[in-house]
Amino acid sequence: MNLNLIRQQVKRNDSKIILLIMDGIGGLPLAPGGLTALEQAQTPNLDALAARSVCGLHEPVARGITPGSGPAHLGVFGYDPLKYQVGRGVLAAGGINFDLQPGDVAARGNFCTVDENGVITDRRAGRISTEKGQELTKLLREKIQIPGVEIFVETVKEYRYLLVLRGEGLSGEIAETDPQQVGVKPYPARALEPAAEKTAGLVRQFVHRAGEVLAAQSPANMLTLRGFSQLPTWPTMEEAFGLRAIGIAMYPMYRGVAKLVGMDVPPASHSVEEELAVLEENWSDYDYFFFHVKRTDSAGEDGNFDLKVSIIEKVDRLLPRILALQPDVLIVTGDHSTPAKMKSHSWHPVPLLIWSERCRPDLVETFGERACIAGGLGPRLPAADIMPLALANALRLNKFGA
Amino acid sequence: MNLNLIRQQVKRNDSKIILLIMDGIGGLPLAPGGLTALEQAQTPNLDALAARSVCGLHEPVARGITPGSGPAHLGVFGYDPLKYQVGRGVLAAGGINFDLQPGDVAARGNFCTVDENGVITDRRAGRISTEKGQELTKLLREKIQIPGVEIFVETVKEYRYLLVLRGEGLSGEIAETDPQQVGVKPYPARALEPAAEKTAGLVRQFVHRAGEVLAAQSPANMLTLRGFSQLPTWPTMEEAFGLRAIGIAMYPMYRGVAKLVGMDVPPASHSVEEELAVLEENWSDYDYFFFHVKRTDSAGEDGNFDLKVSIIEKVDRLLPRILALQPDVLIVTGDHSTPAKMKSHSWHPVPLLIWSERCRPDLVETFGERACIAGGLGPRLPAADIMPLALANALRLNKFGA
Repeated sequence: MNLNLIRQQVKRNDSKIILLIMDGIGGLPLAPGGLTALEQAQTPNLDALAARSVCGLHEPVARGITPGSGPAHLGVFGYDPLKYQVGRGVLAAGGINFDLQPGDVAARGNFCTVDENGVITDRRAGRISTEKGQELTKLLREKIQIPGVEIFVETVKEYRYLLVLRGEGLSGEIAETDPQQVGVKPYPARALEPAAEKTAGLVRQFVHRAGEVLAAQSPANMLTLRGFSQLPTWPTMEEAFGLRAIGIAMYPMYRGVAKLVGMDVPPASHSVEEELAVLEENWSDYDYFFFHVKRTDSAGEDGNFDLKVSIIEKVDRLLPRILALQPDVLIVTGDHSTPAKMKSHSWHPVPLLIWSERCRPDLVETFGERACIAGGLGPRLPAADIMPLALANALRLNKFGA
Repeated sequence: MNLNLIRQQVKRNDSKIILLIMDGIGGLPLAPGGLTALEQAQTPNLDALAARSVCGLHEPVARGITPGSGPAHLGVFGYDPLKYQVGRGVLAAGGINFDLQPGDVAARGNFCTVDENGVITDRRAGRISTEKGQELTKLLREKIQIPGVEIFVETVKEYRYLLVLRGEGLSGEIAETDPQQVGVKPYPARALEPAAEKTAGLVRQFVHRAGEVLAAQSPANMLTLRGFSQLPTWPTMEEAFGLRAIGIAMYPMYRGVAKLVGMDVPPASHSVEEELAVLEENWSDYDYFFFHVKRTDSAGEDGNFDLKVSIIEKVDRLLPRILALQPDVLIVTGDHSTPAKMKSHSWHPVPLLIWSERCRPDLVETFGERACIAGGLGPRLPAADIMPLALANALRLNKFGA
C-alpha cells in the first residue's frame, strides 16, 4: 500500500478507531487434526463480533517471513515493514525504554572476550549475567568521557548493551565492528558515508577507551557494536493518516514502536485491566487507539498452549467494555503468529477482523485461523493494508478521482 | 517476492524439501458441470495429504498469462518469471539438450523462402519436415566455417533450428533478423550495444554464407534468426536459497531449466519409477529435490482427458514411496494448467499443497482445483512465493527485524 496515495485521500472527522492487538495471536494445532489456541478458546464475544465483521488473515511482512515485533507492528500501523526499517540500535533503545532523541546515534553491542592479541575468542564473553553486564556498563559510563559528545552506555540484557552518542552532526551510517566470528579482531568503526567520518572517529575513541577500561576484566574484556542507527524521520500517524494516535502497552518494545510513528505513549500499564482504564480515560483526546495485549505472545513463546487459550478468553471477557466505548471502527488481530507448538514467532498469517457500521460482513461466524480463511479480507492481506481499510470504514478517506 | 529479501534471511540446516511437479496438472471440466481430470482422478493418498496440508492455487506468471514451460518452472523454483527472463535461443538449446556453455550466443531461427530479390514469401518455408530440416542444418554445418568462432547449427523441429556461436567476447545483444512478416527482406543482424558489434558481424557473415549454401534449395532457400541470448548469470538456488538442489526429469526442457538455476541434473530417467529411484539414491546428498512428472502435460496437450486422469492416479499410487523418505517439506503442484479441453497450456491457477510439521492445515480435504480455492494459501498465490513458504516450513529463514 502506497502511503502517499492514502495521505492524499485522508480527511479528518470525529470518528474513533481501536486497534486491539493480541500479540502473537495466530497459532498451530499442537497435534495433527487439533485446534489452535484461538480456535479452542471460548470466545463468545469475539465470535459474535466476527459474525458482524469482515474477516480474514493478514501477512505481517511477506510470504514465509517471520517478523520481529518491530516490523510486525509497523505493518499493522500502516507502514510497510520492508520500506520502513529501523536499525537494531534504535530498537534496542526502545526495548529498554531509553529516551532516544532525534539526532542521537544508537548501537547495540556485545561484550566479548579477546586474547592477548586482541583476537575475539568468545563473541558473547561467556554469556555473562545481566548483573555483570550492569557492572560493566556502569564502569564504562564512569570512566569514559569524550569531548564534544555525550555518551550513554546501558545494559540491555546479559552481554548485550546499548551505546548512544548525543551531539551535533552525528550520523548512523557506521559499519558494524562485530566481525560475527571468532578468530579475528573486531573491525575498527568505519564511516559508510563522508558525513559519518566524525561519528566514526568518536566511536573509535570510545572503543579504544573501552578496551583500556575493560582490560582487567574477565571474561568480558572487550566489546563490539552493531546496528548503528538514528531515529527515523518517518511521517507520523498524524501526518500520514490524519490520526491523533495513542499507544497503550505494557512493555517498552511496543511503546517504542508506537513512538516511532508519532503516537503519544502514556506511562506503562501493568495489566490489561489497567490498559483498559487508560483507554477509557483518553477516549475523548485521540482518534486512534493502539491497545496491546502482550501475554498471548509470551504464552506462545513459552510453549504454554493452555495459558494462551486462557488469556484469549480473558480478553474476550473484556471485549464488551471496549465495545461500550462505541468506537466507529474496531480491529482485532495480532502483530504476528506465535504458535505454542513452535515456541517462537512464525510466518503464519494472522486472524483479523474489522468491524464498523459500514463493513461488509462475510460468512465467517467465529474468530479463528481456519474460519477467517473464508473471510472477505482473504487469507493473506498485507498487514499494511489494514490501515487504509480502517480509515475507509471511519469515512476518513476522500473519493479518488471524479 | 524479493529474492534479495529471502537471500538475506536464509539459513542452512539439514531439512529436505521435495517439489513434486505434475506438469500441466490444472485443468477444466470437459463439459459444463463436469469434473476436472484432477478432481475425477481417484487420489486417496493426495487427498489424505491435502487434509494435513495448507492448500491453495498458484498463478505461474500473472493474471491471465499462459506460461511456457520455462517461465512456469522458474516461478515455482522461486524466480519471478517476469524478472528472470531467458532468451528463446537459450531455451531452444535447453529444449534439444544442447550443451550450451557460458559465453555462447544462442539464437533460434526459421528456414524461410525468399524470392529472387531476397524478399520473404514464406516465413516457414512451407513448414518443411524435421527430416528436411536436419538435412539443411547438416549442410550448413559442413559448408560454413568462420574464422575465430565455432559454429553449431542444430535442428529444433521442422523449419526451426538453433544457431550457437562459441568464442571469445561474444554478446547476445543482437536484434532479430526475422521481420515477422512476408513481403520484406530479412533484417541484417544489428548490434544493440557497442560490445556486440563483433558478434553482429559474425552473424552477418553466417547469414550471408547460409544464403549462398541454401540458394539452390527449395522451398527453404534462406533463414532468419530470433532470440539471441546467452546463459543468464542468475543467483543459483544455492546462492539465493542456500539449497543444494537436484532436478529429476525425463525431458531436456525441464532439465535445462533446472540447470539454469544451478541444480545438479543426473542423467535422464525414462519413467516415473526410474525417477523415483534417482530420488531415493540421491536423498542424502541434496536439500531440495525437484521431481518432474511430464505425462500429465502431454495428455492434456493431446486432449486425452482419461489418460491425464490415469497418470494422476499413477502418481498418487507412488506418493507413499515419496512420503517414506520423510521429507521435512513436501510441495505438490504443477508448473501450469494444461486442460485437455484446450489441448494447450492455459492461464488457470494451479492446485498446490504444502505439507510440513509446521504448516497450518486448512479445511481442504481433497486435492482438486475447486477444493483448493478455500485453502489457506488462497486461490491465486504468485508461484514465486512458494519457495519462501517452503523455506519457512523447513525453518530455513531467519526472523526479520527485532
